Order: sequence, then structure tokens, then C-alpha cells
Amino acid sequence: MWSMDQAALADRLRSLQRGPQILVIPNAWDATSARIFEDAGFPAVATSSAGIAYSLGYLDGQRISRSEMLAVVSRIAAVVRVPVSADMEAGYGAGPSDVAETVRQLLAAGAVGMNLEDAWLEGGEVELAEIPSQQERIRAARETAQRAGIPLVLNARTDVYWRGLGDPAGRFEAAVARMNAYLDAGADCAFVPGVRDAKLIAELAQGVRGPLNVLGGPGVPSVTELQALGVARVSLGSGPMRTAMGATRHFARELRLCGTYDRMSDAMSSDGASRLFEPRD
Amino acid sequence: MWSMDQAALADRLRSLQRGPQILVIPNAWDATSARIFEDAGFPAVATSSAGIAYSLGYLDGQRISRSEMLAVVSRIAAVVRVPVSADMEAGYGAGPSDVAETVRQLLAAGAVGMNLEDAWLEGGEVELAEIPSQQERIRAARETAQRAGIPLVLNARTDVYWRGLGDPAGRFEAAVARMNAYLDAGADCAFVPGVRDAKLIAELAQGVRGPLNVLGGPGVPSVTELQALGVARVSLGSGPMRTAMGATRHFARELRLCGTYDRMSDAMSSDGASRLFEPRD
Repeated sequence: MWSMDQAALADRLRSLQRGPQILVIPNAWDATSARIFEDAGFPAVATSSAGIAYSLGYLDGQRISRSEMLAVVSRIAAVVRVPVSADMEAGYGAGPSDVAETVRQLLAAGAVGMNLEDAWLEGGEVELAEIPSQQERIRAARETAQRAGIPLVLNARTDVYWRGLGDPAGRFEAAVARMNAYLDAGADCAFVPGVRDAKLIAELAQGVRGPLNVLGGPGVPSVTELQALGVARVSLGSGPMRTAMGATRHFARELRLCGTYDRMSDAMSSDGASRLFEPRD
Repeated sequence: MWSMDQAALADRLRSLQRGPQILVIPNAWDATSARIFEDAGFPAVATSSAGIAYSLGYLDGQRISRSEMLAVVSRIAAVVRVPVSADMEAGYGAGPSDVAETVRQLLAAGAVGMNLEDAWLEGGEVELAEIPSQQERIRAARETAQRAGIPLVLNARTDVYWRGLGDPAGRFEAAVARMNAYLDAGADCAFVPGVRDAKLIAELAQGVRGPLNVLGGPGVPSVTELQALGVARVSLGSGPMRTAMGATRHFARELRLCGTYDRMSDAMSSDGASRLFEPRD
């Protein structure tokens, strides 16, 4: 019987992102995608809030409730044995107590890592948290996890590049200041989505005093290149889910327009699909 | 504001499978796949019990509870405007009252069509319902829907080919006898998965006194050919979900082994994904 406990899973995730090898952590949106990633050999699995939102019929961006999001996280954590890091957007509330409650529920769902963003939509406008306020939210997450006895791996995300916030000329300094302030407050990793340029990525990796997470995908340096640039962790956001959606759309168009099934030739077999969910020792 | 009521949706589904054109009804497993199918122009959407089971982390074959299955059906019915036909396996219970309860809950979830199978696993063994007992189950479904005021489209499935039941020499006669008995009991359509041979399909279409549903996919005649053979309705089972799973696995392997993102080049864009869930008039 397999039985790595939740604290050990958290330690494992932390060591993976500090190891000599870059950590590639693909983002699942349901139990199937999580098992496919585990089966492909990834040592950890993340979630995509956008992917989960889409699969439940919501637009991205905190329209889905915390409990709906965590119900999916819980299903994912139940079917894989590798550590699961959950994308909890901006923590489901502006206050430190909201973030604390999100951490409590996330740990109860079986996840051992969490993404926490510093910007969110408020009445249609982007709200970027002030640094001290985001640090308070991070401290609340850290303290909550400590009280629960689980060394949660906190991935603090800054959206200054992703959402194009502030003066472009000062964006690099702003990102580095935020990343280091978040690490100082107790984050384990700094996540800067929205950067593709190799030189910029290398400078961010040099500027941050801890592991740097970037978003992989078309137009971004390969995993090998990212490792050479000093990146510690690569996630994929909604890319994997949108890849599955693209395949579904191609299948649908062929079936609708041609009445043929060629796009199904690369389908997983029923046996292969079943094998993913068979009981394991 | 769009407002086709549930009874009208049921009538629409019924007329689609009796029209001059063959009905192609692809099987969704979550809100996203359902919206992709609707967006591609399909006039109705089915569900795949296996696909839904996989996406929630279960093996296929009634391991998932009725309420978990219907929670997904309900999300699907909430995001599309076309009729939804739900695959409810063997009705979640052997008795007519079990089937009746399944129909009540299915209608409450917003579906207007239902697949009902005549075989299920009982203690590891395949149990094939006797014809009179399956007719009772069908009558219970029909009466429950009538009392609810919704003309449920009942797709009665026989698994004699799918599971290879009984003497192969007598299988054709067994299938035709079952299909017609199910139609006599109030089913609207007869579903025979597991047949690929054009001559056999044509003979089944001739033998059945109502619309015939077959399962499309690689090795099966194209939609145009199926129409010429007399088929009224084509569904795809877990094929679409397994196609998305295949794409996810290819993406995962490339990322894991090569550290590149080429498989994401066919991904749906974030804008395209969001558009699927934007409010509609």
C-alpha cells in the first residue's frame, strides 16, 4: 500500500524545485489529465484554474467558486501519488483571512502546493495588491499551513508582465522587487508568467533570491534552454487544456463537415484509458 | 433571451433522429467539450458515461454514482442550447423503480434524452436483462417522463454485439428481437453499439421498426455511408474523450522527453476558449 503523507509530499515538491534539474510541472484540469501527466513520468502535477473553470463551463478569472475549484483539486489529488500544486488564482478574497481559509481548504483537498496571484479583477478593473499587503497575504498562507503541520509550497505569482501593469520601463525592477518581497514574506518560489525573451528570463532568474517559475509554451525557450537560463520551475498554465480543446475541435469539425473519424486515429485506447484508473498497490 | 423549454428540446431531438438527414450526436464529457460540439454546428449533444467517469477519476461501468454523473450532465445542459441526451448506462439499478428515479433526476438535470442499456455487471459477471424485464424498465422510464410532462427521447441500447453475448449465430435475430421489443415498450430509438460491417448494419436498419443508432469511429462506415445504409443516428461513445486524452498524452510525452511545446501549436487560443463561455443573448 502506497502511503506518502501530505507533509512528505510537500517536502518532495519543495526539493524538486530546488534540485539540479529544472522542474517541469504540467497543469491538469481533471482527474484524467492529471493521471496522464503522472503516467508520462512527471514528478509533480499542477492545476490550471482556467482549465478547471472551462471544464465546468465558466469563464476564467474567479467566476468559479472556491469550493467548486477545490472539488476538482481534491479529485486530482486522490488519483495521483505525486505532489499536487493547485492554482488558486488570487486566493479567493483580498484579505489575509480569505487566503488563510483558502489554504485550509486546499490542504484538506490534498494539495501540497499553491499558486497565489497579486492581481485580480475588482469591478472590471485590475487591482494590483500593494507589496506589504501581498506580503501579509503570503504570511497568512504560510502560518496557516504551519499550524496544519504541512510545509505548503507557496508559489507567489506576480502579474506585472502577464497583465502588462505599470510603466513598461520600470517593469523589470517592479517584478524583481515583488518576487523578493514575496520570498521574504515566506513564499518558496516566485512565478512570473508572461515572459518569453531569453535575456529577460535570465535577468529575472539572476534578480530573484529564490527559485523562479516561468510559463512554458510556443514562443518560449525550450525546457533545456530555460534550465540554462537559471529557471527552476516551468508550468504550462491553461496550455495543456487548450491543446486538448484544440484536438476536440479538430475532431468535431472533421466529423461535422466530412463525416469521417480520422482525427480519432490518435485516440487513447479504451484499455489504455482504463489502465490509468485501475487500482494500484 | 433564449428560452426553448425542456419539452420543446425533447421534441426537437426526436424530430432530428426522424429527419431526412442522419443525426450525428457527439458525446461530451464536460462543459467545454459540449460547447465545442455545439459551436461546431451539431444540433444535439450526447454524453459519454465512460468519458465522464474518466474525467472524474473512475473506471467505466457504473463505478461513478448517479448523482456525480448527473452533476456533470447538469453542467453540460446549462451551457448548451441544443438538446442533451445523457448516457445513464443501465439506469443505475435493476428495477423499474430505479430507472424511474434515474429519469426523474435526469430531467431535473436538464437532459431530454437518455440511453438505457440492457446489460450490466453483477459481481463481475455480465447480466443481460430478460426482454420482458427490460421492457418493464423502459415502460417505467416512459411513464415517469410522461408524468413530468417532458417527452423524453429514450434510446434503448442492446449490448448483445458490444459485449459479444449469446450464440454468435443467433446474435442478429437476438438483437432485432430486442430492438423491436424495446421500441414496442416505448423506446424512441434502438442503439446497437459494436457493429462495423456495412452489410450487417444495413440488415439491422431493415430489421428494426424504428430509428437505429450505431456507434461511429475508425473502422466504421463514414456518416454518409451510414445514412445510405439506413442508420438514423450516429453517436461516438468515449471516442471524443479518448481523442482528447490521446492529444494530452502526446503533449505530455513531447514535453517530458523533448522539453518542447510543438504539440501546443494546435491549441485553442485563450480568446477562443473564453468565447465559448461568454454570455449569449
